[in-house]
Amino acid sequence: MSIITLTTDFGLADGYVGTMKGVILGIAPTATIVDISHDIPPPSPQDWGVRGVREAAYTLYTTYPYFPQGTIHVVVVDPGVGSERRAIALRTPQAIFVAPDNGVLSYVLVRERVEEIVHLTNPHYHLSPVSRTFHGRDIFAPAAAHLARGIPLAELGEPLMEIIAFPLPRPQVRPDETIVGQVIHIDRFGNLITSIMATDLADSYPLREAVVEIKGQSIRGIVNTYAEVAPGKLLALIGSSDHLEISVSGGSASRTLQAKVGDEVLLKVKGHEDRQ
Amino acid sequence: MSIITLTTDFGLADGYVGTMKGVILGIAPTATIVDISHDIPPPSPQDWGVRGVREAAYTLYTTYPYFPQGTIHVVVVDPGVGSERRAIALRTPQAIFVAPDNGVLSYVLVRERVEEIVHLTNPHYHLSPVSRTFHGRDIFAPAAAHLARGIPLAELGEPLMEIIAFPLPRPQVRPDETIVGQVIHIDRFGNLITSIMATDLADSYPLREAVVEIKGQSIRGIVNTYAEVAPGKLLALIGSSDHLEISVSGGSASRTLQAKVGDEVLLKVKGHEDRQ
Amino acid sequence: MSIITLTTDFGLADGYVGTMKGVILGIAPTATIVDISHDIPPPSPQDWGVRGVREAAYTLYTTYPYFPQGTIHVVVVDPGVGSERRAIALRTPQAIFVAPDNGVLSYVLVRERVEEIVHLTNPHYHLSPVSRTFHGRDIFAPAAAHLARGIPLAELGEPLMEIIAFPLPRPQVRPDETIVGQVIHIDRFGNLITSIMATDLADSYPLREAVVEIKGQSIRGIVNTYAEVAPGKLLALIGSSDHLEISVSGGSASRTLQAKVGDEVLLKVKGHEDRQ
Repeated sequence: MSIITLTTDFGLADGYVGTMKGVILGIAPTATIVDISHDIPPPSPQDWGVRGVREAAYTLYTTYPYFPQGTIHVVVVDPGVGSERRAIALRTPQAIFVAPDNGVLSYVLVRERVEEIVHLTNPHYHLSPVSRTFHGRDIFAPAAAHLARGIPLAELGEPLMEIIAFPLPRPQVRPDETIVGQVIHIDRFGNLITSIMATDLADSYPLREAVVEIKGQSIRGIVNTYAEVAPGKLLALIGSSDHLEISVSGGSASRTLQAKVGDEVLLKVKGHEDRQ
Repeated sequence: MSIITLTTDFGLADGYVGTMKGVILGIAPTATIVDISHDIPPPSPQDWGVRGVREAAYTLYTTYPYFPQGTIHVVVVDPGVGSERRAIALRTPQAIFVAPDNGVLSYVLVRERVEEIVHLTNPHYHLSPVSRTFHGRDIFAPAAAHLARGIPLAELGEPLMEIIAFPLPRPQVRPDETIVGQVIHIDRFGNLITSIMATDLADSYPLREAVVEIKGQSIRGIVNTYAEVAPGKLLALIGSSDHLEISVSGGSASRTLQAKVGDEVLLKVKGHEDRQ
Repeated sequence: MSIITLTTDFGLADGYVGTMKGVILGIAPTATIVDISHDIPPPSPQDWGVRGVREAAYTLYTTYPYFPQGTIHVVVVDPGVGSERRAIALRTPQAIFVAPDNGVLSYVLVRERVEEIVHLTNPHYHLSPVSRTFHGRDIFAPAAAHLARGIPLAELGEPLMEIIAFPLPRPQVRPDETIVGQVIHIDRFGNLITSIMATDLADSYPLREAVVEIKGQSIRGIVNTYAEVAPGKLLALIGSSDHLEISVSGGSASRTLQAKVGDEVLLKVKGHEDRQ
C-alpha cells in the first residue's frame, strides 16, 4: 500500500482536490491519500505566483521527512499550468516527488540524493484529453497513482538531467559576527520562522545571552518553550524544524510586529559583542 | 471496498463532518471516505438556502465523473432539514447519490440515466433517535454506509418516481448570434465559470476573434492558458470542465470585475458579426 | 484496523497536521485517520489558551460517541507545550484519548468510566529528539500510532491517579424556576449552543409555552426544526447534541444577536410562571 500526499493552492471550497482524489482512487484504489496543505497562497499580479511556489517548497520541506520511505508527494502549485513549463517526477532514496518544474522542489534538491528525474510526457499515463488549466487532475494525479501501483518512474516519460531550482534563503554573517537572516514563513499562530538554523549558531555561544532584532524590537535570550515567558511577550526559540523562530507567548508575533515574509532578522551574541 | 464522498455546508471547524465519518466507519469500517467540499455557503435570510443548493449541485457535477464507478456521493446541503422535504438515494450506472430532495441532484438528472430512486424511510437504516437538525449524522451517513456494505438500495425505503430539480442555467442565443450566458460559479482563484460551454461554440468560429463581454469590459480572443497573457490582464478560456471561464492572469477576475454569480456574460464572434 | 481521530488548533495551511499523519502512518500503516477539527481557536493574550482548550473539549464531547468502540482520539490543543504540563493517555470502555493534561478531557471524565490513565513518559515511544514546541508530532502522534498497533497503554508511561479537569458549565435554577444557562459554543451557522440540556427541562412543561431570553430578546416557544419559522426569525430548539440551541432560520443567531460564548441565556416556562 502506498501513501500519496497532496500540497496545492486549490483551497478546499471547490471540488478540485476531491477531483484529484477521485482520479487517484480510480487508478490506485488502495492508495492512502494524505493532505499536506491546500492553502498555499494563489498567484497575485504582484508576485506572479512566486510566493506560492516558495511557500509550497517550504511546507513540503518541513513535512516530507516525517513520512514513511517511498511516499509519493504531489505538489500542484502551478502558476504556469498549460505553458511550456515541464511536469516532472523525481526519485530519491526517501521519496518520490511529482510536481511542475518551477522550483517547488528546491529544498528537496539540496537535502536529498536525486536518483532519477523524468519529464512526464508519456500520454498513456495522462487523462485524455489533457485540459490546459488543470494538470493536477490530468497529469499529476494520474502520475502519482500509477507510481503507487508500481509503474517504474522511467515509464512515465523521458529522463531529465536538470530541473529549475531557486537559491535557498541562507543567513549571512557580518564581520562583527552578527547573523543576518530573514523571515521565510509565517504560520497559523503568527510565529515567524526565519532562515537562521540551529546549526548556524556556534555551540559555544550562550543562547541566554543572544539578542534577536526584528522590526526595531530586541529580544534578549533564546528560550526553550512558548510558556517560558509572560503572555503577550515576544520571545525567540529554536522551532520544531530547527529554525530560529520569533513568537509571542499566547499570541501572534506577526500581528504584534506587523511582520511579513522577507523581513530582516538579526542575531547577535552579546557575550561575543562585548569582547570586541 | 467502497468510496463515499462528502459534500456539505458544515465547514471544518465544528465536529459535524467528523461525526458523520464516525458513523460511516462504525457501519462500514473499510469504506474510503473522501471530502469534496465542506465550504458550500450556508443559508442566509436573503437566499433561504437556495445559493448553497446550487453551489453544491455545481460542485458535485464537476467532480463525480472523476470517481470510480460505484462511488457513493453524499450531499448534505439541507436548509429544509427536519421539514417535510424528503431524504433520497438515487442510482445511475456511474454512481449512487444520497441527498435531500431539494434540487441538489439537478445536474445529475440531466447527465445520467437514473435507474432507481428511493425515499430513505426505513428506520432500520437510521440512527435512533433521529434528531430534527442533523440528518447528515442520523440518516444520510448511515444510508451511505449501508450501501457501501452492499445493502440494496430498495431496502432503504420506498421507490420514488420523481424528485425535485431546478432548470440548469443554459445560455440563450440572440438573433445576431450573440450567446448570452451567466456566471454560475466563482472559484478560489477568482475565476468566473460561466454557463456557456465549449459545445455551445460553433466549431467553425475562429476563437481568436471571439469577444467576451462582462461588466462593461471586453476581452478579445479565447486563449488556451492563463500564462498566455501578461500578469494582471483579463482573459477568457475554456476551463477544465468545458465551460467558458473568465480569469485574470496571476490574479482574480472576481476581484478585478467585482463580479458575482448570476452576472451576465456575452460571447460575440467578431468575424461573424462583420458579415452582418 | 484502528481509527485515530485528530483535533487540533493547527489549522490546515501549514504542514503540521500532515506531519502528524506522516508520523502515524510510519508506525501504524493501516490506521484510518479522521480529522475532527483543526480550527480550534489558537491562544490569545486575553485567554492564554483557555478558550481553545474549552472549545476542543466541547468538540470532542459532541463527536467521540459516534465513533466505533476502541477509536483513539488525539487532541493537540496545547498552549503549555514544552512546559511542565503532562502528556497523557486515558482509556475508557468506549475509547482511548491522547492529549495534554490541561482539562481538554473534562467532558470525557464526567461521561465515561475511566479504566486507566498513563503519563506518556516512555521515551521509547517518542520521536527522538523531542522538540520543545511540537509534541503533536513527537509525543502524541507516536503514542496514538503505537496504541493503534496494539501496544498496551501501560507500556507508554507511568500510571496516573488524577488529571486536570475544569467544572463543566451547568445551568442554575432560580427560586422562580427560571433556568439560567450560558452560550458554550457557536457553530459555523451562527447557532448558539447553550449549557441547558434537554434533560434539564421538566417533561411536563409545555415547550410551546417556554420563553427563552438572550441579549434582551425573547423567543416564545421551543420548536422542532429550523424551517418551522420564517426566514430571518430567531428560534430556539433542542439541537443534535441535546442542548438548547438558539438559531436564526436561514441565518446566523450569533450575527443577529452579536452573541458570544459565555453570554447568559434564561429559560422560563410561562404556564408555570403564571401559577405563581
